[in-house]
Amino acid sequence: MDDDVPLILTLDDSGSSVSAPLDDLDREELPNENGGSYDVVNDASSPAAGDCCSQQSSARHNWEMNYQEAAIYLQEGENNDKFFTHPKNAKALAAYLFAHNHLFYLMELSTALLLLLLSLCEAPAVPMLRLGIFVHATLELFALIVVVFELSMKMRWLGFQTFIRHKRTMVKTCVLFVQFIEAIVVLVRQTSHVRITRALRCIFLVDCRYCGAVRRNLRQIFQSLPPFIDILLLLLFFMVIFAILGFYLFSPNHSDPYFNTLENSLVNLFVLLTTSNFPDVMMPSYARNPWSCVFFIVYLSIELYFIMNLLLAVVFDTFNDIEKRKFKSLLLHKRTAIQHAFRLLITKQRPSGISFKHFEGLLRFYKPRMGTRERYLTFKALNQSNTPLVSLKDFYNFYEVVGLKWKAKRNREHWFDDLPRTAFLIFKGINILVKSRVFQYTMYTVVAVNGIWILVETFMLQGGNFFSRNVPWSYIVFLTIYGVELLLKSTGLGPVEYLSSGWNLFDFSVTLFAFLGLMALAFNMEPFYFIVVLRPLQLLRLFKLKKRYRNVLDTMFELFPRMASLGLTLLIFYYCFAIVGMEFFAGVVYPNCCNSSTVADSYRWLNHTVGNKTVVEEGYYYLNNFDNILNSFVTLFELTVVNDWYIIMEGVTSQTTHWSRLYFMIFYIVTMVVMTIIVAFILDAFVFRMNYTRKNQDSEEDNGIVLEMEISKEEVVGIIELYKRSSAAPETAQLQKMVLQMDKYGQMSTLFLGRRSRTKSDLSMKMYEEEIQEWYEEHSRKEECQPPLQEPASASKSCTKPQSLRQRSQTVI
Amino acid sequence: MDDDVPLILTLDDSGSSVSAPLDDLDREELPNENGGSYDVVNDASSPAAGDCCSQQSSARHNWEMNYQEAAIYLQEGENNDKFFTHPKNAKALAAYLFAHNHLFYLMELSTALLLLLLSLCEAPAVPMLRLGIFVHATLELFALIVVVFELSMKMRWLGFQTFIRHKRTMVKTCVLFVQFIEAIVVLVRQTSHVRITRALRCIFLVDCRYCGAVRRNLRQIFQSLPPFIDILLLLLFFMVIFAILGFYLFSPNHSDPYFNTLENSLVNLFVLLTTSNFPDVMMPSYARNPWSCVFFIVYLSIELYFIMNLLLAVVFDTFNDIEKRKFKSLLLHKRTAIQHAFRLLITKQRPSGISFKHFEGLLRFYKPRMGTRERYLTFKALNQSNTPLVSLKDFYNFYEVVGLKWKAKRNREHWFDDLPRTAFLIFKGINILVKSRVFQYTMYTVVAVNGIWILVETFMLQGGNFFSRNVPWSYIVFLTIYGVELLLKSTGLGPVEYLSSGWNLFDFSVTLFAFLGLMALAFNMEPFYFIVVLRPLQLLRLFKLKKRYRNVLDTMFELFPRMASLGLTLLIFYYCFAIVGMEFFAGVVYPNCCNSSTVADSYRWLNHTVGNKTVVEEGYYYLNNFDNILNSFVTLFELTVVNDWYIIMEGVTSQTTHWSRLYFMIFYIVTMVVMTIIVAFILDAFVFRMNYTRKNQDSEEDNGIVLEMEISKEEVVGIIELYKRSSAAPETAQLQKMVLQMDKYGQMSTLFLGRRSRTKSDLSMKMYEEEIQEWYEEHSRKEECQPPLQEPASASKSCTKPQSLRQRSQTVI
Repeated sequence: MDDDVPLILTLDDSGSSVSAPLDDLDREELPNENGGSYDVVNDASSPAAGDCCSQQSSARHNWEMNYQEAAIYLQEGENNDKFFTHPKNAKALAAYLFAHNHLFYLMELSTALLLLLLSLCEAPAVPMLRLGIFVHATLELFALIVVVFELSMKMRWLGFQTFIRHKRTMVKTCVLFVQFIEAIVVLVRQTSHVRITRALRCIFLVDCRYCGAVRRNLRQIFQSLPPFIDILLLLLFFMVIFAILGFYLFSPNHSDPYFNTLENSLVNLFVLLTTSNFPDVMMPSYARNPWSCVFFIVYLSIELYFIMNLLLAVVFDTFNDIEKRKFKSLLLHKRTAIQHAFRLLITKQRPSGISFKHFEGLLRFYKPRMGTRERYLTFKALNQSNTPLVSLKDFYNFYEVVGLKWKAKRNREHWFDDLPRTAFLIFKGINILVKSRVFQYTMYTVVAVNGIWILVETFMLQGGNFFSRNVPWSYIVFLTIYGVELLLKSTGLGPVEYLSSGWNLFDFSVTLFAFLGLMALAFNMEPFYFIVVLRPLQLLRLFKLKKRYRNVLDTMFELFPRMASLGLTLLIFYYCFAIVGMEFFAGVVYPNCCNSSTVADSYRWLNHTVGNKTVVEEGYYYLNNFDNILNSFVTLFELTVVNDWYIIMEGVTSQTTHWSRLYFMIFYIVTMVVMTIIVAFILDAFVFRMNYTRKNQDSEEDNGIVLEMEISKEEVVGIIELYKRSSAAPETAQLQKMVLQMDKYGQMSTLFLGRRSRTKSDLSMKMYEEEIQEWYEEHSRKEECQPPLQEPASASKSCTKPQSLRQRSQTVI
Repeated sequence: MDDDVPLILTLDDSGSSVSAPLDDLDREELPNENGGSYDVVNDASSPAAGDCCSQQSSARHNWEMNYQEAAIYLQEGENNDKFFTHPKNAKALAAYLFAHNHLFYLMELSTALLLLLLSLCEAPAVPMLRLGIFVHATLELFALIVVVFELSMKMRWLGFQTFIRHKRTMVKTCVLFVQFIEAIVVLVRQTSHVRITRALRCIFLVDCRYCGAVRRNLRQIFQSLPPFIDILLLLLFFMVIFAILGFYLFSPNHSDPYFNTLENSLVNLFVLLTTSNFPDVMMPSYARNPWSCVFFIVYLSIELYFIMNLLLAVVFDTFNDIEKRKFKSLLLHKRTAIQHAFRLLITKQRPSGISFKHFEGLLRFYKPRMGTRERYLTFKALNQSNTPLVSLKDFYNFYEVVGLKWKAKRNREHWFDDLPRTAFLIFKGINILVKSRVFQYTMYTVVAVNGIWILVETFMLQGGNFFSRNVPWSYIVFLTIYGVELLLKSTGLGPVEYLSSGWNLFDFSVTLFAFLGLMALAFNMEPFYFIVVLRPLQLLRLFKLKKRYRNVLDTMFELFPRMASLGLTLLIFYYCFAIVGMEFFAGVVYPNCCNSSTVADSYRWLNHTVGNKTVVEEGYYYLNNFDNILNSFVTLFELTVVNDWYIIMEGVTSQTTHWSRLYFMIFYIVTMVVMTIIVAFILDAFVFRMNYTRKNQDSEEDNGIVLEMEISKEEVVGIIELYKRSSAAPETAQLQKMVLQMDKYGQMSTLFLGRRSRTKSDLSMKMYEEEIQEWYEEHSRKEECQPPLQEPASASKSCTKPQSLRQRSQTVI
């Protein structure tokens, strides 16, 4: 891109050397309209349109307010916050600002976590963490009071009207109320009662700002529910039919305990759906009549192999559809946010675009940490026409551009270019060596040999304590090789470049771990010996060799954040069930319990003497209990894995009532939903990525979005001037350094590279390219209230009121 | 469409009343070119272009040959047979015709089935079906001789060169050879040796013409293998790493039998992958240190919940891609077939299209059963321009049109329109009643009440023999209601219309079954009592109420043929494994075996007396054996369901060597492949259909493809004339009847409706509409050898030789 000198000059708002006809009003430049809500802050009447003789400071104040509101709009667009929660006046704004920073968010999160972690110490507590009732109840009350404080801040910001209409907040308030009362009751009675409501504590976590991804997952799960339930009904319907059929067919066989009543028949077919009791449930009837296996084969074929897959298909299909619609609504929401922000940043005199001065003001609030140089680069990257103003059309790219990280394009190729000649040649040699194929394949061979070595070594080493002996020499040899490789690579490529690759980082950490393992071995530090066995992870490097693995592993890393949020969602469900489980089933299973049930063997614990030897017969299943929250989590994980879950169910059932089965069955269905969503998600993400790769086979190798931008010295000087004249905090040090550097190297301009990693949204943008245009058109057709934006503001005044905003946001989302 | 009289007149080839300028050559009309391969049959020199004075009969003979070859080309296109197997001369044609009819196909199928079923009677035979060695070896030899005969016919048709190049046929020949020798050895030695090669018998079934779908599935499975294996390696890699890790961590614990050696560690982690030993494998270490559960949770999360789903994703993605490519190649193959056929049907004089005479000749060979009326309708449906000739462009629609079933559009609306007034009114009333919403919802209510009734009844009826008592009155009441409904519906709609709906057919059969059940109850026919319990199936009707269920059930029915073929594919794998299993493991497990293994309990069979009561302790697992092929199949199904498969594996392993585990593990992986393909298939089919529905929301309700065509009386008379003059068998009875009927009603023309159900291919055509055009263009660019077709034939002569055909077909498929 060429330097465009006029642009710089007009940036200088003094109007001294500028040709633009509108600049005479620059200093008293007024916001386009009265859209900003916060100008009541100084109780002055809002500066009416054309009120040019109002005080300069007031105008500046108004501008600051506008910048802030625009930044809030843009943030709302980014976070997908609905516009009807937009702060409406100065008081609300103060509360909004108070409630929207990382300190507050952290407080929210830690309160929620504290509340959740309390269940470690409450009644059926983890033995080591048991606290007195007085202590944990007080802690709980304290945390609840903090939540009350948070909620009151939110109320101040939202206003009472919006507050009671915001569903999630209202639910939270109710839960808070109940918890409060219960905590007080506990404190007064000094004893815990049955508090299933503790399961609702997770709502405090879900409501945290940082848990947006979890909320999104939950929404997606609930949206996928209707089709899921439909198919589930089909599943249950067949189950009932087969239960009746099975009861009629097999109950005459008295040695068959699985079908002797209709209830047993139903329960066992439900368990059979999970295959958990499979050959056993068939065996008594199969022993009597071989053809009875047909019943089970038909049942499993219909239920397990057909309808369960149908379930996945339906969820996958819905998921696909929802993902697309979500992307669409988010895109349009962002667009609307940009429109709102734009309207606040243009002046009455120049309604067609935003000047750098105002753009800079916006960024001061939107990204306070951003340097002045980056701000200007962002502005220039947005501005695709060569005019001094950013038009709305260009401004629509705001979110894509603002995330770029700018760096001056370095002239030197390697980090050692500036070193003396000899050193340069050595490092150059290392660099060439490290980048050569021979070196890479040698390393692969070493890794492979190491892998085989470990395997053989482990195979030879049967039994015994492995870690008390000396450090094996092979360990040292291989570690030395890896160490040398690490050293060569980091010197040859430079430490920064070396660590910027994910694979190298992986190498580095594995080698470091191996070294720590060596230390542990050498100094006999028992607790760390597990590090030693992580060595085989080095083998993962071999998977770099094949493209498909690179693809898969890259996808894996891309999926990771989303997977983590799905895992967290699952944990939240676990928490609810764990609390309920503890309240009802704590302490019901113990060694040698459940003797009346068919699964008594699994709970047996016998310590008897045969001959002169003590034989311990352990069923171990009594360990799968709900005695404290950690045990409950493990038990629930076992239920999630499904295999042999009926043993746990039957054990608990035999010690309580048969209604307990409901708990286990509901849990199974809930995890089935979440698991199906997870599968659908992995499927969707993977297929999407593969399709994308197929569609853009050329641009496949580049990782990330890169933009190039050139800045001339004059421009920089111009900006410095601008900053100097404005009374806002002049952070020109960075810019001045840049000028000095340019002077030093005698350059007239510097080239900058803006870089960011590619997000799912970028991929989607490319995939749906054609449809997006349609959406935009449809969107602008729907927005009757949308002002023409090229006209003066007064025409659109009625549209920017918060009330109408709400209306609009509802049509969008 | 209007009547186009000129068309009819030119159909009359006598040239008496026709305006077409080319008709003077009609009677001696010559095939366009010497493309037909079979004209050597009468040893006459082939009629050279322009050889107008050759004998009329020879010309006709040539035409017959051309018709036949064109029909063969079209059949090859339809069946996706490669063109290089096209019969090349008259001798080959005779063999081709012999080997391509249903009688021959049936022979193929029954020989293959006979060979497969022999394993019921061979060495570890099903007790009731045991045959002497002499008997079954003789039967086998007989079947093999039949296969030899089939293969020799195939060789005659293909020619030796093509025969040995056709891979599948060659494999079959080798297998045949081996089987032959083995069968003779068995006969001579009068004893069966270890005959694992029997597992290869399935190739005879796979090669059957009727098993095309199975072949397609197998091909798809093999095509999906490479990505599958890649991910499988990743899976196994993590398994090995975790096995080493597990060995180091848990082997110091001597009460943990699962990780005491590296081999055990590996095997148990493999089994853990199937979740089959889940909480048990964790329990000993969990009892010692609660934190060891982290190892298992991480392992399962990575392997089971991530990589296994990735496996599905990769297979699904590959599957998707393959399906599309398959559709493309099939489409282009059909197109090429049509081009070949077209070239054989045009005349030198009129190279731009096919006249009805020749089209009719083609259909005589392509669809011998088709009536003359249908042939003409097909011709007319193809012919979209109003000329007497079908151009190549129109002819491309051949496959879409030829499948239509034509029916005269009836003038009467109901079947009872012709009845006397009173009867008409009664039936009309019934018709209105039956179609009313009130009636339908009443029936739904009845069905629902019936369902609840059955449930309650069954619930009340605990134990005892249910079928010896009298027929319950509720059964009779509900059956009567259903009977009345059936009667009303079939009279109101007419039996034909009633049974044409799938749902009505379902109602009918369920009601019939219920009636049979009543009979069984009334006459105390024990073996049929299971029919009674099928009654709840009636409830399935309730699912008609909701659109999603209708969609799902429709998809289910559409999927059924493909599902069946996938099931058959699975059975073929079962067969191979069953044979191998029987050869190695027949008779190794029995009651109270396996006492040395950890699963001894499951094989226990004790009959001891406690107090004065006989207690039978049954582990039942000895029933899951490989003692004969039926037992093997059941055992393999249990292995497919996976739950507790390790008990079967360990039982067999403890009685044989630990290499037996390989058999079970390989079987697990094979079924995993097939099952993943099945899941991918269901997903694909369902998502495809949903996308299709979303794309064509308006035309959603119509079921099938319908074409309307009008025929005037003159046209019919013209065709009759044409037939009468030609010496070919005049089947004009149908046409004459039509003329009579038209005369009777005084109509000048009759409207016909062509109808066929929508196939997947139709859906795909619509889905890929845009891409198809591209494919066609690309295809015609590739086909350099493609003659312009509008020019005289001589130019393209070199292209129609079989040699060049093969070349072309290879570029296409």
